[in-house]
Amino acid sequence: MSTPIEIKVRGYHLDVFGHVNNARYLEFLEEARWALLENHLATLASKGLAFVVVNININYRSSATLGDLVEIHSVISRFGGKSCTLTQKMIKKGSQTTVVEAEVTFVILGTDGRPLAMEGELHKMLTPFADKSL
Amino acid sequence: MSTPIEIKVRGYHLDVFGHVNNARYLEFLEEARWALLENHLATLASKGLAFVVVNININYRSSATLGDLVEIHSVISRFGGKSCTLTQKMIKKGSQTTVVEAEVTFVILGTDGRPLAMEGELHKMLTPFADKSL
Amino acid sequence: MSTPIEIKVRGYHLDVFGHVNNARYLEFLEEARWALLENHLATLASKGLAFVVVNININYRSSATLGDLVEIHSVISRFGGKSCTLTQKMIKKGSQTTVVEAEVTFVILGTDGRPLAMEGELHKMLTPFADKSL
Amino acid sequence: MSTPIEIKVRGYHLDVFGHVNNARYLEFLEEARWALLENHLATLASKGLAFVVVNININYRSSATLGDLVEIHSVISRFGGKSCTLTQKMIKKGSQTTVVEAEVTFVILGTDGRPLAMEGELHKMLTPFADKSL
Repeated sequence: MSTPIEIKVRGYHLDVFGHVNNARYLEFLEEARWALLENHLATLASKGLAFVVVNININYRSSATLGDLVEIHSVISRFGGKSCTLTQKMIKKGSQTTVVEAEVTFVILGTDGRPLAMEGELHKMLTPFADKSL
Repeated sequence: MSTPIEIKVRGYHLDVFGHVNNARYLEFLEEARWALLENHLATLASKGLAFVVVNININYRSSATLGDLVEIHSVISRFGGKSCTLTQKMIKKGSQTTVVEAEVTFVILGTDGRPLAMEGELHKMLTPFADKSL
Repeated sequence: MSTPIEIKVRGYHLDVFGHVNNARYLEFLEEARWALLENHLATLASKGLAFVVVNININYRSSATLGDLVEIHSVISRFGGKSCTLTQKMIKKGSQTTVVEAEVTFVILGTDGRPLAMEGELHKMLTPFADKSL
Repeated sequence: MSTPIEIKVRGYHLDVFGHVNNARYLEFLEEARWALLENHLATLASKGLAFVVVNININYRSSATLGDLVEIHSVISRFGGKSCTLTQKMIKKGSQTTVVEAEVTFVILGTDGRPLAMEGELHKMLTPFADKSL
């Protein structure tokens, strides 16, 4: 399983309620995806292929606030015919309280703009991130 | 049905792919919720009650880019026992292409931090926003 | 003088201090610049020219908070040899309290990546926005 | 001198021009200030004192883009009677190219909302961050 990333919650991440804002959590999750797939995203781009998120289903379980250190775990939890789902879980380091859990479904668009089948090279590239334990 | 809000897509809304970023769409949807519920949110806050989003399920259908004028429609599509779901749809003005569609589920927390039943005053307050047509 | 833009301050604009965050004010100012120069920016881009901000000097005078309606006025206050300065002022509508005042200096880069002289066509394009009264 | 912080530039930090957006640079600088002053900000808050930025003067020297690793150095470069200036410099790691340079002036507001003199305890707390070499 891949190494989780850590983010320290700062004052500018919060909103009027004193909690990390809903949209900001999505940036945190995107940061974790870049960290996870960095080299592969560059490879895809160099071939004219695009990584495109088509659905995010996010549960806000508890709120993170100033000074919290959160940890984001990301694994591929499902291979579909032409799509793939990442499960991402953010927990507070220490207490292990779950902050958010999200399923992020993406496709890889070919040079003609249509989703590629999740097989061959593509499947091989993504398989190392697969894990059903999260 | 309530009046949709309009947002003009600017250069700072976009990301490396030249499209509105995933997290930014969530800000656009939050803007629409503030516009819709503004007075009621203030009333709730004055009573020590909190409007809390517990789930967002968002489909990215097509991408908005520089100069697009998008329109966001928001209606309450479901009343649960202790939660409520808003359906929000963002379309490009003119072409009517759907950009994103989201279901946003929220609860109202009482002064003891527990979700209130969606009945009585609360139900009455939210009913005018209910619509199943979106 | 150009029409000011208006922005309603929302919960997601604020930070841990309950005020609009420093970085967010810069987005508000950028929004005002897009609104002001929209068509001209598109014209420049179509010619391969780039509008590039080289300095922002911003004074935070008082803070805007939830529900405030702010108004942003923008005028060109200085023409330099190869740069130009916009003065932008954000005030609370009603009270007329100044929230932020900023001087934003920009250059227009030619197709060779070097700043163009602020003369001829370029000067003519920007002159209508010049005003020393702000 | 304090340890610089590092940030990896991601796709969601960029704007339509493919460069880190002006407002995002301010978040990067704020991140560096939190990292630098973290414990002291908490101490101030616990005493009812507030750290308030009153001016930012930022020069955009060159642009950071996808994959760049930037380093932010922050030192106190000036003590005024009732204000203090931080100089913050962001460079690309490796090439040492300067990306942005900013002077950030702040005050510490007392419990009555008025700026405190930069002397005694306050001066002692901030002195370790003073450096004129940046």
